[in-house]
Amino acid sequence: MSKTKTAVVLLSGGIDSAVAAALARNQDFEICALTFDYGQRHRWEVTAAAALARSLAVARHSVVKLDLRTFGGSALTDDIEVPRNRPPENIPLDIPVTYVPARNTIFLSVALAWCEVLQAQDIFIGVNRVDFSGYPDCRPAFIEQFERLAQLATKAGVEGRAVFRIHAPLMDMSKAQIIRAGHRIGVDLSLTHSCYDPEGEGLACGRCDACILRRRGFEEAGVLDSTRYAAAR
Amino acid sequence: MSKTKTAVVLLSGGIDSAVAAALARNQDFEICALTFDYGQRHRWEVTAAAALARSLAVARHSVVKLDLRTFGGSALTDDIEVPRNRPPENIPLDIPVTYVPARNTIFLSVALAWCEVLQAQDIFIGVNRVDFSGYPDCRPAFIEQFERLAQLATKAGVEGRAVFRIHAPLMDMSKAQIIRAGHRIGVDLSLTHSCYDPEGEGLACGRCDACILRRRGFEEAGVLDSTRYAAAR
Repeated sequence: MSKTKTAVVLLSGGIDSAVAAALARNQDFEICALTFDYGQRHRWEVTAAAALARSLAVARHSVVKLDLRTFGGSALTDDIEVPRNRPPENIPLDIPVTYVPARNTIFLSVALAWCEVLQAQDIFIGVNRVDFSGYPDCRPAFIEQFERLAQLATKAGVEGRAVFRIHAPLMDMSKAQIIRAGHRIGVDLSLTHSCYDPEGEGLACGRCDACILRRRGFEEAGVLDSTRYAAAR
Repeated sequence: MSKTKTAVVLLSGGIDSAVAAALARNQDFEICALTFDYGQRHRWEVTAAAALARSLAVARHSVVKLDLRTFGGSALTDDIEVPRNRPPENIPLDIPVTYVPARNTIFLSVALAWCEVLQAQDIFIGVNRVDFSGYPDCRPAFIEQFERLAQLATKAGVEGRAVFRIHAPLMDMSKAQIIRAGHRIGVDLSLTHSCYDPEGEGLACGRCDACILRRRGFEEAGVLDSTRYAAAR
């Protein structure tokens, strides 16, 4: 089947967005992958995103620079310490200091701009509410509201030439389910990066929330985790 | 009266956002001005925004770089010719090639991020539907939809600590009314820049839509226009 539809896929370099991209590909979308270099502490994920874009054979990959360090306010973009060694069962319960204000709103807005230029109407985002229920912009109500905004915000939407859809196919999946799905459809998970505060060359710390959820996810999924972690458990 | 409220004000360097900023100030908001260096052809407006920020005595001024040339699709960010010498009465009727896809959505999203960091809940934007009825993101329906999104997209909104308001005080004003209002409340309009395709040092072309609306606006307002235009009428 020839791919006639184009989708903009937010590709961070982590597991979730890589699996979301592969799911888009399996729905016969031609993928235009969008990555942000936003001054994140774990800038290594931008390198991971480039490797994943190649591995997923995307049609185009854009890396947009936008320095959110200008405002700070998050442990990922500011001199706030990244939490360590939190019990995994506590991670989803509160909004952590690693929350980056309005991040997904900004990312979806830029994706929408690219969509309009490409004359596309589909955006894929790898958010899920299971492990990130504390993040307001990882919930269905937010995604639905953005979809409505997209329709009103764009020339194509207002003129009735496009019906924008924000796809969040991982919304209700646990990390283990996402890893299992990715493994099944051939995502090279060894290329993904999760750690919020890596040591040199993307070496995962093993103790931040992202490392803890990743480790546990691979274990629960029964999939080999090839990640090198600096800290043993 | 002491200023206790903070507002993020989108300050482009043009007339409209300068007047919106002054109106915010007159409502006793302390102003955090936000300007985008987005690869626009008329980058001179970023210089104008800095001069306006000083003149308006803002508390902070952030210039955020975000290169929308990555995607193109607009005469303001791409090698598409800026329209010249269009009759002013035709300008509001269609969506022109100077429309930048999803621009106000992106700008408001970044403003929202800064708002959340500042623990503020007010954003001012100088959009108006009179001269720009062709731009989907200059209409009340868009602004209202973004306000709803802001509430769902943020930690402060979801936790009920903030009620976000997007102020668009110029929505129903003509360019002449905006100029008259700005003149009355002491905005130094000579610092503003409008031209989409200036020659060196911000010299206005006199023939693009922005120049044509500016010229006519000053005339109708009966306010002296100190702009230097390269082309006579």
